[in-house]
Amino acid sequence: MSNGEQFRDLSPIFEPKSVVLIGASNNPLKWGWVILSNILSHGYIGSVYPINPKEDNILGLKTYKTVFQVPEEVDLAIVVRPAEAVPKHIEECVKKGAKSAIVLAGGFRETGKEGEKLEREVVDIARRGNLLIVGPNTMGVYSAKVNLLAIMSPITVMKGEVSFISMSGNIGVNLLSMGSMENVGFNKFVSVGNQADVTLEEYLKYFGDDPETKIILIYIEGLRKGKTFMEVAEKITERKPIIVMKAGKSAAGAKAARSHSGSLAGSNMIYDAVFKQAGVIKARTINGMLDLAKAFLHLPLPKGNRVGIVSWGGGYGVVAADACEEAGLVIPNIQEKTIQELDKILPPYWSRGNPVDLVGTLDRSIQPKSLEVLVKDENIDAIIASGFLVGGSGVKFASPEPLKKGVTITGKGVMLDDKGISMEVLAQKWIRSSDEQNINKINELVEKYQKPIIAVTLTSDTKAIPKAWEKNTVVYPTLEAAAEVLAKMYEYKQYLEKRKQNK
Amino acid sequence: MSNGEQFRDLSPIFEPKSVVLIGASNNPLKWGWVILSNILSHGYIGSVYPINPKEDNILGLKTYKTVFQVPEEVDLAIVVRPAEAVPKHIEECVKKGAKSAIVLAGGFRETGKEGEKLEREVVDIARRGNLLIVGPNTMGVYSAKVNLLAIMSPITVMKGEVSFISMSGNIGVNLLSMGSMENVGFNKFVSVGNQADVTLEEYLKYFGDDPETKIILIYIEGLRKGKTFMEVAEKITERKPIIVMKAGKSAAGAKAARSHSGSLAGSNMIYDAVFKQAGVIKARTINGMLDLAKAFLHLPLPKGNRVGIVSWGGGYGVVAADACEEAGLVIPNIQEKTIQELDKILPPYWSRGNPVDLVGTLDRSIQPKSLEVLVKDENIDAIIASGFLVGGSGVKFASPEPLKKGVTITGKGVMLDDKGISMEVLAQKWIRSSDEQNINKINELVEKYQKPIIAVTLTSDTKAIPKAWEKNTVVYPTLEAAAEVLAKMYEYKQYLEKRKQNK
Repeated sequence: MSNGEQFRDLSPIFEPKSVVLIGASNNPLKWGWVILSNILSHGYIGSVYPINPKEDNILGLKTYKTVFQVPEEVDLAIVVRPAEAVPKHIEECVKKGAKSAIVLAGGFRETGKEGEKLEREVVDIARRGNLLIVGPNTMGVYSAKVNLLAIMSPITVMKGEVSFISMSGNIGVNLLSMGSMENVGFNKFVSVGNQADVTLEEYLKYFGDDPETKIILIYIEGLRKGKTFMEVAEKITERKPIIVMKAGKSAAGAKAARSHSGSLAGSNMIYDAVFKQAGVIKARTINGMLDLAKAFLHLPLPKGNRVGIVSWGGGYGVVAADACEEAGLVIPNIQEKTIQELDKILPPYWSRGNPVDLVGTLDRSIQPKSLEVLVKDENIDAIIASGFLVGGSGVKFASPEPLKKGVTITGKGVMLDDKGISMEVLAQKWIRSSDEQNINKINELVEKYQKPIIAVTLTSDTKAIPKAWEKNTVVYPTLEAAAEVLAKMYEYKQYLEKRKQNK
Repeated sequence: MSNGEQFRDLSPIFEPKSVVLIGASNNPLKWGWVILSNILSHGYIGSVYPINPKEDNILGLKTYKTVFQVPEEVDLAIVVRPAEAVPKHIEECVKKGAKSAIVLAGGFRETGKEGEKLEREVVDIARRGNLLIVGPNTMGVYSAKVNLLAIMSPITVMKGEVSFISMSGNIGVNLLSMGSMENVGFNKFVSVGNQADVTLEEYLKYFGDDPETKIILIYIEGLRKGKTFMEVAEKITERKPIIVMKAGKSAAGAKAARSHSGSLAGSNMIYDAVFKQAGVIKARTINGMLDLAKAFLHLPLPKGNRVGIVSWGGGYGVVAADACEEAGLVIPNIQEKTIQELDKILPPYWSRGNPVDLVGTLDRSIQPKSLEVLVKDENIDAIIASGFLVGGSGVKFASPEPLKKGVTITGKGVMLDDKGISMEVLAQKWIRSSDEQNINKINELVEKYQKPIIAVTLTSDTKAIPKAWEKNTVVYPTLEAAAEVLAKMYEYKQYLEKRKQNK
């Protein structure tokens, strides 16, 4: 790098063959128990050695008094001991020839001068011994390659292609956990902590070079080395998207960030300039990072910014148009032949324009049909399909099924078909099968026409979304989220085009 | 009203003693079936008379050939017949002496000159006969007072104190349905349709005077009578909040609104001025209306704009501070005695300031304790409690194997098991019971200190929220939503103060 930055091989951290856990515990309320349980539950493929001078066995594993008794080379030491004990343990790790260590304890630079001195001591020992340090003051590391969940919170992580660098342990761990619920798989994760040794920029470079990482997320409160960050990021964004959420934007937030991560927030204008120059995609919120990740994982980039809106209900069309235009997208006129084709599908009083209002009708087969007509339109680069996933939990009645079979009605409000299944259940089944048809059609059309289609479900019905997640259909609960994501995708597309032209 | 506006008594629409359904049907795919089934399923307390010349019995009810055969006075006629048949049916309703009618069909003014003429014809007949018309081109009406769900979509509505006027049928119906899932009860609802006869301003006046309506929501695409709206609204906002979502803000949105509701969007600046003058609360999104409704229903207004943040994890504190400041709120210093009290509860390395970072600890009993200390602080007007509801579904521990053998662990967190229950299940139970303790404490403190406390759950775990909804605790999935709602509450508080001073 221009400023003499060093970028070391971080594979001992993310691909260790052996791990020792210094401070392993038999008490489930201690991090030394939780981390071991995480490592075991996620099936880490290497050797694990708990270290605790007072125990013989923890979670079924033989436990060692000190790191010196471990009968193998140590790639990664996870140190769960309090700050003041850390120098001694790192010293021992160096003597043992360990290649890297995660230091979880707080109580270092973030607490003042004394802590800063202690932190420098630890780093000096480590650097003399060529030992990489993650943290201190970190919540740990995850790596799908070796099934290593070395994290001090009992979560589930799904494997995948997103890697994540976080300046907040809690935000990091929480997003990993949310990913497992929303079908976003992670490849590597690090809570950078105080970055006493390995820096955010080093992790970024490593994830950038990592062939298993397709998308990089970063939660930032401040950058110490803006120029290095920019240079590293710029080399990566040509190949894979980097999505950043920058906190500490306001005066109050910046003050909180100083207290939390010791970050000097710096001017937002400078950050914006750095991110723009490097082609980094800015998320507006934490959850917005996951939203963006899903779209970049599963959808092609839009070739332009012209959005077709197909909505079940005219009001949602209006709101969608607002959301798109406010995000910098365009709602173009659709082609005459598209209108003619839609005329054949929709009732005569449809909007005959974009947004395509499917009008209120119970015949949901018009949804996939209309979508297919719209996606073919050459004026359209991307589509928001609103009201395509319903869930059905709120529905009381109405299904075509029982009519065919002969309806038996017993009293007010209770409606049975000839087999005794309630109308409500039938209606819900019918709605969910229509939802699934929509999901399948969306996936088919994305593949066939290589245009991004985002579904929006306008309900809080928790049954509406999971099926789409399962099938990698991109769906959000709000039109605003969909518009924002499409705008960011288009921005990235433009960035890539510009880079191509400049070559 | 200053401009000679008439405000009629709308009780025949919202409190009818008898309803006829012209165009009732035995086919569950027809509106004439769905509406009847809705009326029956929600237990309408008056008489219902289906009208259909070809049927004798629909959904178990005796069916009449024409409205003239109905053996009772008619308060409300629901007309489910196509546009061209509507004049004849309204004529008959007038002859029968019916007091009001809902005309659902589209095909009137929104479709052009011919439709406009037809619409005028219908209104002329109705006005000559003193019959109120809802619509045409409406999705219907709901009224909790008489359990009337006269809506052409098969939904569930929960009873409550929110009344809702919508210029979009779909948005209206969808929000009603979401309310039933998110514990927001509705009192009255109208999809105004073309407002050929009864106008949005008349409904607003009626809901304003209605003692059972505590909060009014309005979805607007444009106002035809801005001055009347302002005058009516201004009289109401002193007594109850009006929450408006205005769509058609962008050029594309305004164009879509013209096509959808025939609204001329007008300048956003003028709308903003009207809303501000009248003390109307502006929601930014559709779902934001529900968010605001929950807070105005269940929380006292904040006396000032100084927010205390208590967060499980420092990063979320930073993000919360950003969100508050961006919404116009202030993150003040907390009192010295608050810091001293928190010193007794929190680990020595806590942030010692606002946001109060609870640091990463598994002992969740510090959450309600810290919250109580913070809420007492005189520098604090409102609180965001972040990470207080977790859900626990993402928690996963190592194979329960070793525990099944009878491991007994004693510690603060009561996580012991010698009965063979998996640690994972125990942990989830423990998390959910901690969630519930937090919910109870939040409710207790809101009541005791009369300051609004909003919980934020930072997970997509669907188990995290419903318990809070059940108990009327205000909780949102994002910090941004919490900050926005607090800012609007404070804005309304200021408006009320100003009105008091001007008296």
